[in-house]
Amino acid sequence: MFLPLTPLHFLQRAARLFPTKTAVVDGARRYTYATLQERVHRLANALRQLGVGKGDKVAVLSPNSHRMLESFFAVPQLGAVLTPLNYRLTTPEFAYILEHSESKVVLVDWEYAHQLAPLTSRLAGVQHYVLLRDEEPPTAPLPAEDYEALLAAASPEPPPPVELAETDIATLNYTSGTTAQPKGVMLSHRACVINAINYIVALHVRPTDVYLHTLPMFHANGWGGIWALAGLGGTQVCLRKVEAQAVFELMEREGVTLACAAPTVLVTLASYEKARDYRLAPGLRIGTGGAPPAAAVLRNMEALGIEVIHLYGLTETGPFLTSCEWQPAWEALAVEERYRRKARQGIAQLLTDVRVVDAQGREVAWDGKTVGEIVARGNNVMEGYYKQPEETAKVLRGGWLHTGDLAVVHPDGYIEVVDRAKDVIISGGENISSVEVEATLYDHPAVLEAAVVGVPDAKWGEVPKAIVVLKPGQQATEEELIAFCRARMAHFKAPKSVEFVASLPKTATGKIQKFALRERYWQGYDKRVQG
Amino acid sequence: MFLPLTPLHFLQRAARLFPTKTAVVDGARRYTYATLQERVHRLANALRQLGVGKGDKVAVLSPNSHRMLESFFAVPQLGAVLTPLNYRLTTPEFAYILEHSESKVVLVDWEYAHQLAPLTSRLAGVQHYVLLRDEEPPTAPLPAEDYEALLAAASPEPPPPVELAETDIATLNYTSGTTAQPKGVMLSHRACVINAINYIVALHVRPTDVYLHTLPMFHANGWGGIWALAGLGGTQVCLRKVEAQAVFELMEREGVTLACAAPTVLVTLASYEKARDYRLAPGLRIGTGGAPPAAAVLRNMEALGIEVIHLYGLTETGPFLTSCEWQPAWEALAVEERYRRKARQGIAQLLTDVRVVDAQGREVAWDGKTVGEIVARGNNVMEGYYKQPEETAKVLRGGWLHTGDLAVVHPDGYIEVVDRAKDVIISGGENISSVEVEATLYDHPAVLEAAVVGVPDAKWGEVPKAIVVLKPGQQATEEELIAFCRARMAHFKAPKSVEFVASLPKTATGKIQKFALRERYWQGYDKRVQG
Repeated sequence: MFLPLTPLHFLQRAARLFPTKTAVVDGARRYTYATLQERVHRLANALRQLGVGKGDKVAVLSPNSHRMLESFFAVPQLGAVLTPLNYRLTTPEFAYILEHSESKVVLVDWEYAHQLAPLTSRLAGVQHYVLLRDEEPPTAPLPAEDYEALLAAASPEPPPPVELAETDIATLNYTSGTTAQPKGVMLSHRACVINAINYIVALHVRPTDVYLHTLPMFHANGWGGIWALAGLGGTQVCLRKVEAQAVFELMEREGVTLACAAPTVLVTLASYEKARDYRLAPGLRIGTGGAPPAAAVLRNMEALGIEVIHLYGLTETGPFLTSCEWQPAWEALAVEERYRRKARQGIAQLLTDVRVVDAQGREVAWDGKTVGEIVARGNNVMEGYYKQPEETAKVLRGGWLHTGDLAVVHPDGYIEVVDRAKDVIISGGENISSVEVEATLYDHPAVLEAAVVGVPDAKWGEVPKAIVVLKPGQQATEEELIAFCRARMAHFKAPKSVEFVASLPKTATGKIQKFALRERYWQGYDKRVQG
Repeated sequence: MFLPLTPLHFLQRAARLFPTKTAVVDGARRYTYATLQERVHRLANALRQLGVGKGDKVAVLSPNSHRMLESFFAVPQLGAVLTPLNYRLTTPEFAYILEHSESKVVLVDWEYAHQLAPLTSRLAGVQHYVLLRDEEPPTAPLPAEDYEALLAAASPEPPPPVELAETDIATLNYTSGTTAQPKGVMLSHRACVINAINYIVALHVRPTDVYLHTLPMFHANGWGGIWALAGLGGTQVCLRKVEAQAVFELMEREGVTLACAAPTVLVTLASYEKARDYRLAPGLRIGTGGAPPAAAVLRNMEALGIEVIHLYGLTETGPFLTSCEWQPAWEALAVEERYRRKARQGIAQLLTDVRVVDAQGREVAWDGKTVGEIVARGNNVMEGYYKQPEETAKVLRGGWLHTGDLAVVHPDGYIEVVDRAKDVIISGGENISSVEVEATLYDHPAVLEAAVVGVPDAKWGEVPKAIVVLKPGQQATEEELIAFCRARMAHFKAPKSVEFVASLPKTATGKIQKFALRERYWQGYDKRVQG
């Protein structure tokens, strides 16, 4: 029997089987699965009355909230395409994405509405703005329908069924551009289901799990957890703004058992001085991706009884590609080695295929040394970039998605990312992994955050430079940190200079923006060693 | 990106990621995933040389063994269709299935070869018999190739890739017919993958799991565990003949964490007097289906630290349909009520949809009382019965697979099978669930096994009769058992007579063959109350 694979099934299942179970917690709001399903139906009917039909794009600009979560079901239910916007972008970037995606309706949280206000007269394609907030606002920052008013007026019954193929696009996520314009990643209904399965299997999700959304839902659809948790009838806890105290309070109050967190959030949680005051659920696990968790983070988390699971993926891949599945044999290793293992990206998920290949597309040796590019294939991989066939062809070639991430494969098959292709420092012909240098710096007790970039050098072409944030109240000198690194690695890899800063520029998902750091040092140069 | 969903992926993944891990244990043989994959390639190449190509049927007749397991990967790898035979059938039944399926090659274990020997001159369609045994036999019971000799001579490299659609048929399982001829259930590659995912999610399978095959692999492909366990790189332990001592020895020696067992096997294990002498892995769980586990079984298993999980499904549905997912709130219930909950069939798996409907196809009330038929839909459901469109149309109608099983739905949505449609006893117009009467009899300390069937009665049309096997050394009279039942249920439901027997007729999968019992009492009657 053939039925289209669609993440819509997950909420339908939960609403059928667990109608009275808490589906979503958002501040004082607690919705059961029956209520969530009803609200999703109402939203779908309301959007339909606003003219949304199959293939139309509906953008959403919101911090994590139950309303944003609702859009992940209601929009695809109409055969329409959800376009979640990164709320850390600027008004011109929003304009670009809304125009490029041809979004017909924009759901916007009141906190971000002012950013779109200048656009309402300019974006001819957007037919309706819908304002997401708790009460109908006395004066709206832009001409908008009110979300709750729309829902109240709409039918709670399922909208008329739409003919749906599983290869239809469900979401269009624009990747946070570094230098080029953002690209719209098209994920099919099928890809979203396969990704959700990978998520469930890799994170051992159970119906009793209570998930805390700290990762923004706009970011790779919150790793797909929105659908995965609904599928099993788990509970999802929303949080508008991630602060350590709020996170620990919610984890205790709601009995959170599972979360995903960006590396910087993990650092914040791991170093929160009052963390021990909270009673956390036994077996609480936190998935993290984007940068390997530092030993200090793992140590602190372990002390709190939290298991950190290192994940790896791209918006283009669903996102789930690998997880660092723990091996029982590793228990016997020394603690430092255990942490090193835990910080690896790991192995391909159940329903995907991941390899590390050389320039000719051949797999590199599993020797922990030979660097190659990570490529992936599977039903979780995107259909392409929306209206950008050339960009699509650059990454989807020969049946594989080329990630641009450089990695080694250890003899046990576990993948370790050594660098983004563009983050490799080439100094006097030697490749230096900036990640490796950073990991060494993180071992220094005074270092809170560190980024290493290549800076111009007359003799070597470029040399590594460290930009460092010290821990509050801690001291360290440039000479001390350089000596610390030279004592622990080949001298050519050690930073030649160190700059101390109060904070590092980051992407919306907490990744340090090295390209922004590099810019400072390469101004006036015609050509960079690294493009 | 679209790649066909196929269970072949599962072994490929394990062979890539866990080449040195133990894939299969069979007696003294222990194969790693690298070796298993190589043997599968060899088998595929050997079958190819015997003329097996896309769409051809390859039958296998074997007790659980590593060779049978190999066939589950090698045959579909060629785009061919695996037809596992129930080894408890008879020579004429084998002839029927081999002819009906047009099997081209038959893999047959030496223990069963004599059953096929009379057929070799008769079955024109079968081009080759391949004998499965440890050493090449000096005189084969039938003209056959030797499995190991074929493998030794074949290439260990993957066979040339076959163009495969995920809707292509992977397996053809003939259901153990009750009165009609066996029917061939066609399952697609896609259905096998979806079923394996349901299996992994429902049984919380992890890469560290060690699975013991006590359920015959021919039966609904061993619930799909062959593929599911390979997908995660778990270990599979094979056992030719299920005996309590052998099972417990293997469970201890191999650190078994997971098994599936037919109801009768469960009874055997639960009542094995030396069970406590073995050190079992903590958290060992056993899935069971076909009949609800009795309270006594659950009690004994609990005492051994074994968690019993009640599963439900049909060969026609992948087979996985429901599992009795444990609810934390049930912990607070009295022990008898906990066992009653555990004995329910439970709720639909992640990727399937199961309902209980009345004659008009409307869902019955979730009141724990209203009886309806279980219907199911999902990508795990079969494509149909091979070459039997009329039989297919009888069960696949209106987008649902009709199971013929009668059930109630409890207020929490948990399904409880009350009877096979044909096992309901209608006495004086009242419906009597034979399962309910049996469950009461199982509560009697002297009862080992019980079957209740309707027998002719001049006044009531039919009345319930119990056929009982007593525990060794235990005594009970007919009057005593009838009184025991009358004290616990409506009098019209209590058996009117009891027959004591040494053993009950069973299907290959351990289900009691009630139709065989009924036959005895209805001879000479024109028409049975139940067809």
